[in-house]
Amino acid sequence: MSDPLAPGAAIGILGGGQLGRMLALAAARLGLRAHIYDPAAASGPAAQVADSATTAAWDDAAALDAFAASVDVITYEFENIPTGTLDRLGAARQIRPGRRALEVSQDRLTEKRFLRDLGLATAPFAPIDGPGDLDGALAETGVPAILKTRRFGYDGKGQARIADPDVAEAALASLQGAAAIAEGHVAFEREVSVIGARGLDGAIACFDPGENVHEGGILRTTTIPARLSVAQRTDAVLLTGKILNALDYIGVLGVELFVTPGGLIVNEIAPRVHNSGHWTQNGCTICQFEQHIRAVAGWPLGDGTRHSDVTMENLIGDDMDRLAGLRSEPATALHLYGKAETRPGRKMGHVNRITGPAG
Amino acid sequence: MSDPLAPGAAIGILGGGQLGRMLALAAARLGLRAHIYDPAAASGPAAQVADSATTAAWDDAAALDAFAASVDVITYEFENIPTGTLDRLGAARQIRPGRRALEVSQDRLTEKRFLRDLGLATAPFAPIDGPGDLDGALAETGVPAILKTRRFGYDGKGQARIADPDVAEAALASLQGAAAIAEGHVAFEREVSVIGARGLDGAIACFDPGENVHEGGILRTTTIPARLSVAQRTDAVLLTGKILNALDYIGVLGVELFVTPGGLIVNEIAPRVHNSGHWTQNGCTICQFEQHIRAVAGWPLGDGTRHSDVTMENLIGDDMDRLAGLRSEPATALHLYGKAETRPGRKMGHVNRITGPAG
Repeated sequence: MSDPLAPGAAIGILGGGQLGRMLALAAARLGLRAHIYDPAAASGPAAQVADSATTAAWDDAAALDAFAASVDVITYEFENIPTGTLDRLGAARQIRPGRRALEVSQDRLTEKRFLRDLGLATAPFAPIDGPGDLDGALAETGVPAILKTRRFGYDGKGQARIADPDVAEAALASLQGAAAIAEGHVAFEREVSVIGARGLDGAIACFDPGENVHEGGILRTTTIPARLSVAQRTDAVLLTGKILNALDYIGVLGVELFVTPGGLIVNEIAPRVHNSGHWTQNGCTICQFEQHIRAVAGWPLGDGTRHSDVTMENLIGDDMDRLAGLRSEPATALHLYGKAETRPGRKMGHVNRITGPAG
Repeated sequence: MSDPLAPGAAIGILGGGQLGRMLALAAARLGLRAHIYDPAAASGPAAQVADSATTAAWDDAAALDAFAASVDVITYEFENIPTGTLDRLGAARQIRPGRRALEVSQDRLTEKRFLRDLGLATAPFAPIDGPGDLDGALAETGVPAILKTRRFGYDGKGQARIADPDVAEAALASLQGAAAIAEGHVAFEREVSVIGARGLDGAIACFDPGENVHEGGILRTTTIPARLSVAQRTDAVLLTGKILNALDYIGVLGVELFVTPGGLIVNEIAPRVHNSGHWTQNGCTICQFEQHIRAVAGWPLGDGTRHSDVTMENLIGDDMDRLAGLRSEPATALHLYGKAETRPGRKMGHVNRITGPAG
């Protein structure tokens, strides 16, 4: 498939959470249909707003085949899709972004090596396949360090901090035998991220970098513009372009960076739309969700120029108790995800606060 | 119902076209569900993106009752809803905007009298109930004049121009006996419109006036800002507020105005989101669709401040042949309506071209 998708064409989206929801809404604006595939209930955030939805397991061959047959191209809202699912779907339809991006980002060790091989700076890291690797790994990374499972971690899950060597074995045990890596501590000044996009034609466009604040491993706010020197900003965009090209990427990619006195260090990459790019919905003519749909649909990338400065705040768990006040705030756009139940740590929505014209 | 709708609540929308589609998308952003009611096929523009849809006739009592029972409040995307439908639905749920706005805007004669009684300037007009009224009416309005059916006209349909008195009878005959009014010609410098909103609490907010160009009775472009003096701009906003208050209005209202050397003349009002307000999707933090949903849901009105200057162009019929070029235009947001078939005169989508920061 190389022609741009025509009006009425269907984009299959693997995963039915809030990212799928906002992708489906962006597809709708462009006259495209969205078909959500998710093992969870069909009334989830994305299915509520999509043209169609399939509720089936990741290994349900018949459901996967019917899904693939009903769409023109397939994308995803999260990276931990089982390999067998990708094999089956990929035989029938193009999956964008492609397999290489998933292979790299599904495994923290593979990702770190990929970044290092590109000449990009990462935290010091070392693989830990079992307790016997622990001392050697910590010698490599130094202490304090963070142990992380190689696969299936998100929002701080699957991680354990090692503040001193005495607790290292307990920390490793808490990962319950999963293959892991140790990452050395990075003394950073701030965390920023770049939301980049690459089109089918190889064109690249990056949104302006945002500055992120995490709490308990979960993104709390993203502020645009990030406090970066011109040189740092240029570095951030160039290294994002380098990653996009190396992966022969199609779609939107999130790159999380640590800003240190010695330069930018890549923390991690996410082969999808990214929470730290939600500000683009109210800061740019074309937001990250529409940019991703454009790329996946084989359209030319849109114009991601920023017209406004924005601070995005995630609404997590009982932040929803503040809804009455948030509804009344001036210069604030509220985005809610249609989740029926509020739970601690659960992302329920976000607000984009306009702080002024693009400065 | 006076409390603001909570997340997950449902808004019933009468009519399943592009306005219903964009209302449903705005509702989704706010975590609300949309239920579309339309006699046409369930695969229409709005149903594609809504949580649920009912395909049934306007006089299907059982379907209307089930629809009303499934939603928390009801609104509409067009004003020509049969009275019996409104009676039945209105007995079960609040309809916003209310009946008074529909009574006024469903009948051109009632609308003109309402505006005149408010002290607002309109074109000279006179009712024509049959051929015997023609001479007296044209004496009132002068010639040239336009004959318009009192009810069910849109996009130039149900209208006939009278360039000189000799063709008046033929023009009237073309309306096939429908009750009509004659409207005198207004020598205007330009057409502008104000998209106003009024909340449940009586608060009023107006978007900046746009300047409209019509072709063949169909809106072609809206350009923001309109060329208006400060006094004209103030007049336009104040008269919109006067109309909103007089109707005890809840929701978004479109007011079309002629700019003349003698002042602003109200051409017509539309008790709904309006084609000339589509620019707000890419010019404001809160667009007209979200503003309408906020009002109908009993939320406080949002911040309709304009951040960018915009020219909106409708894509009508074979304008869709230009799609490849439109996809590639810088600073342009494309909005397509999911209509399967392109027909002459049919609104298929629109583009919002950003022409600069709000000036």
